[in-house]
Amino acid sequence: MGRWEPDARGRLEQAALELYLERGFDNTTVAEIAERAGVTERTFFRHFADKREVLFSGSAPLKDAIVDAAVHAPAAASPMEAVTTGLEVAGAVIQQRGASVGKRQAVIAANPELQERELIKMASWAAALADGLRQRGVPDPAATLTAEAGIAAFRVAFTGWVQQPKRRNLPELIRESVEQLRAATAG
Amino acid sequence: MGRWEPDARGRLEQAALELYLERGFDNTTVAEIAERAGVTERTFFRHFADKREVLFSGSAPLKDAIVDAAVHAPAAASPMEAVTTGLEVAGAVIQQRGASVGKRQAVIAANPELQERELIKMASWAAALADGLRQRGVPDPAATLTAEAGIAAFRVAFTGWVQQPKRRNLPELIRESVEQLRAATAG
Repeated sequence: MGRWEPDARGRLEQAALELYLERGFDNTTVAEIAERAGVTERTFFRHFADKREVLFSGSAPLKDAIVDAAVHAPAAASPMEAVTTGLEVAGAVIQQRGASVGKRQAVIAANPELQERELIKMASWAAALADGLRQRGVPDPAATLTAEAGIAAFRVAFTGWVQQPKRRNLPELIRESVEQLRAATAG
Repeated sequence: MGRWEPDARGRLEQAALELYLERGFDNTTVAEIAERAGVTERTFFRHFADKREVLFSGSAPLKDAIVDAAVHAPAAASPMEAVTTGLEVAGAVIQQRGASVGKRQAVIAANPELQERELIKMASWAAALADGLRQRGVPDPAATLTAEAGIAAFRVAFTGWVQQPKRRNLPELIRESVEQLRAATAG
């Protein structure tokens, strides 16, 4: 392997997910991930701070995309509609990530500490979405409540989708989940 | 101090909260908490597994009370109404805990790790509430969505209340917050 490593990052991600699934997250070392990806440990650390970041580095750009889409939703859109627009964008991006999404989810489901990290990640999405709504002039508590409700709907949709990703379109499931939430709270 | 220690647990809690506020959670030792409470370290460990548990041991009975009230809400109550009933019970219990609630919240607000723990606690409440709704025959995803939405409303109400606990009644604020959520999702 020369100094030029085409898509080293992608291969590291792929190798890490495979190893986490085979041996468990806790039992996998950075050295093993690098070896399977055919790169040096140093290359690993050029891309990721640690082995947990392999699972969570995709979150920040996703959060930015959600908030950006929500903030720039049509001016006439209600707060819940703006949130839904943002979450649909996230759904489309996640869907494009393909099979690695299901693998990542299986790794997280097998590890309580990673589940906690995922929970904290979703809370940070909700906080960022609430900020986005405030930028649209939505006052609190409506901004916080709408963002939290939207994230709850997203999580339900995502959980259903990741089990059978081929069967349904994630953005559609997200919109459906928001409708179900509306019906549930109206009851 | 004799072997009989009236309300050692209460004094330990009080001492711990004071020290966490004065010195920070990370800079407080169990030895210092025990000393200020006038008991031995051994007594501390008879009541709490570690210094973090002082802040979180009140959560499990509260969760049980919420779920119990939700499960046993009138049969005619909608899922959201059952959840609200449960959360109002939690609100009443929290209100009775008095000034220690605000102190606890200030300790948590000052420490990111404790904030994460609090987040995980609230997620476990939502999961337990969703289970309670399933016991009432509410199917998924409505059970999960209603429980998550209810917890979001609770958090908003609690955050408002804890800043000025004398001014408003927490159960009332919770109901108000659920109404605001309903309006936000309907929009």
